[in-house]
Amino acid sequence: MNAELRTIPATDGYRMPAEWEPHGGCYLAWPENTYFWRQGAKPVQHTVVAIADAIAATGEQVTVTVSSSQYLHARLLLPDAVRVVEISTFNAWARDIAPSFLVDDHGGLRGVDWRFDGYGNRSPYWHLDNGYAARILDLERLDRYAGPIVFEGGMIDVDGLGTGIVAAECLLDPVRYRNPNRDTIIDAVRDYLGVRKLIWLPFGLVDDDTAGHMDNMARFVSPGTVALAWTGNERDPQFERSAAAWELLTAETDADGKPLTVHKIPIPGPLHMTAEESLGTDIGARIDRTGQRLAGSYLNFYISNGAVLIPALDPATDDEAAAILSGLLPGREPIQLPSRELLLGGGNIHCATRQIPATTRRQS
Amino acid sequence: MNAELRTIPATDGYRMPAEWEPHGGCYLAWPENTYFWRQGAKPVQHTVVAIADAIAATGEQVTVTVSSSQYLHARLLLPDAVRVVEISTFNAWARDIAPSFLVDDHGGLRGVDWRFDGYGNRSPYWHLDNGYAARILDLERLDRYAGPIVFEGGMIDVDGLGTGIVAAECLLDPVRYRNPNRDTIIDAVRDYLGVRKLIWLPFGLVDDDTAGHMDNMARFVSPGTVALAWTGNERDPQFERSAAAWELLTAETDADGKPLTVHKIPIPGPLHMTAEESLGTDIGARIDRTGQRLAGSYLNFYISNGAVLIPALDPATDDEAAAILSGLLPGREPIQLPSRELLLGGGNIHCATRQIPATTRRQS
Repeated sequence: MNAELRTIPATDGYRMPAEWEPHGGCYLAWPENTYFWRQGAKPVQHTVVAIADAIAATGEQVTVTVSSSQYLHARLLLPDAVRVVEISTFNAWARDIAPSFLVDDHGGLRGVDWRFDGYGNRSPYWHLDNGYAARILDLERLDRYAGPIVFEGGMIDVDGLGTGIVAAECLLDPVRYRNPNRDTIIDAVRDYLGVRKLIWLPFGLVDDDTAGHMDNMARFVSPGTVALAWTGNERDPQFERSAAAWELLTAETDADGKPLTVHKIPIPGPLHMTAEESLGTDIGARIDRTGQRLAGSYLNFYISNGAVLIPALDPATDDEAAAILSGLLPGREPIQLPSRELLLGGGNIHCATRQIPATTRRQS
Repeated sequence: MNAELRTIPATDGYRMPAEWEPHGGCYLAWPENTYFWRQGAKPVQHTVVAIADAIAATGEQVTVTVSSSQYLHARLLLPDAVRVVEISTFNAWARDIAPSFLVDDHGGLRGVDWRFDGYGNRSPYWHLDNGYAARILDLERLDRYAGPIVFEGGMIDVDGLGTGIVAAECLLDPVRYRNPNRDTIIDAVRDYLGVRKLIWLPFGLVDDDTAGHMDNMARFVSPGTVALAWTGNERDPQFERSAAAWELLTAETDADGKPLTVHKIPIPGPLHMTAEESLGTDIGARIDRTGQRLAGSYLNFYISNGAVLIPALDPATDDEAAAILSGLLPGREPIQLPSRELLLGGGNIHCATRQIPATTRRQS
């Protein structure tokens, strides 16, 4: 284990970069639990293979982590360019459980190991997931900060310049936090991610298992520009969530006092779980989830070096969403990847990935 | 996975270096099976901690591999300077199951992934161990040669200049090899390790579970100089083994035609398993091994950067053996480490370790 640092990242000159800054690599966790993955997780594994393959093709060093029992299968399915290493997890949301990687202005690279409690104990078997970040930092020989609060990578989106967006329903969630406190969150993301100004939307996406992860709702696509999940259907419970966010964001400024431009991205569907999809999972043995609304959103894209991977979820809206996002991320090849299988587990492409910033030098 | 090379290492300019050449790092595998480790493997784990600690102190980047279920415990016990990564194995003999690392004259580093079959199926549950080398090469992003035969790292000792020593009882073992064939072995070590001249001793150490691993019997300590396990007791069945080796080695030359100098290293004991040591293992539930002779040998030392780690096994002989070895490895601090717990599992310090050569450049 490299040093556990007792200092404050921001004071040390470290910040969380924006996703569009250059990546050195990317971590994904092999989906293998049968708790919420159907058919022994075989369909979703092919989705992860396609994602890993696409990211590796853009020049990132992709690592997929997997338990011992699935190692040979993962190694067989994944392309040679992808590194497979053994790290056992319950969930496959590297976004949430991998370290928050930080950079400084001198090529330094470090990581924050936040507390993880299975989304406020909504997910079972999360003790392994809570150890994921430390294992990766040990493996990468990177110094580690211990984040002072429960925090998941998908909770926040940042512009890398001091601005962050979160949802109050998530960061003030009484299931995760015994005494939800706005100042505690503000202090933590300022000190540990370099976020000087935190924008609080009231809500995330409707029916999101995470109770408001920002990577389904609103994302920076460049400094001063935000993409927002949108529906014009006033009868959809998502409408008031998106409208409230629109109202707030269009009146907001970033950390440097510049107004934000907001672009609406249509939501797919609404999408619902089929009876077939509800069957054959551990959770399905207890609860029939047929008809449950899925937290589908094109905002769950991944910006890789030179490309943007966009969920393909609904033929009626896929191309429109991809066209808008592609316009907002010029110079990046838009890659639409069918990802409904990931969505059945509650996340999507962004949730499944965690980039490592490119750096010229590694901290010893 | 980096490339699986279809070419021949020796033709590509690669060779296995001598252990005294500079190391970049060292792998050890956490002992955790209860098949042959007593008391839940707890005593032997402390031995491995001491070894890892000592090697790290000499400036090698030490990695200990461990299963998911023992990760937290290993991380707790091992010093911060040691990296812990998850790779599940049955046995803890990194020497035998890790890759044979090769170097070329241009800073290149590659590995050979031999076939491993649990010492001719003498050990159970070896399917994970057979995958160890490939996992390490994947993790280290090193190109891989597939070794064409069953081979264990402890089978051979080399001078890095083209000479190797093996035991015929081991490399022509009909339990491991369907049709034992001297030429097949000669070809394999020439092509895959760069050994131009292979010296065949008839036997390894008496009562060695591996049926003749060389790292209990005879080791190069410098070009042209060999240390040999020795007893002067003609009633000990080890005597004829050591005497035959002495006769053969003192008449031999290395790959460059230079005569060998041979130094006798006393064996400890003889050492035998106690009744207490036989109890509480899985194998002990089937076979009472009380009184079984242990394959104790000081030859199972590890040459690290700047030091030599020597098993401490018997107060009557420890210091004499260490003094001789220290004289043969000048400039290296002799570190005597109590290692009887490792010996109970059939190996010792050298078996538990696998060095990675230092290199100026890594193969992509």
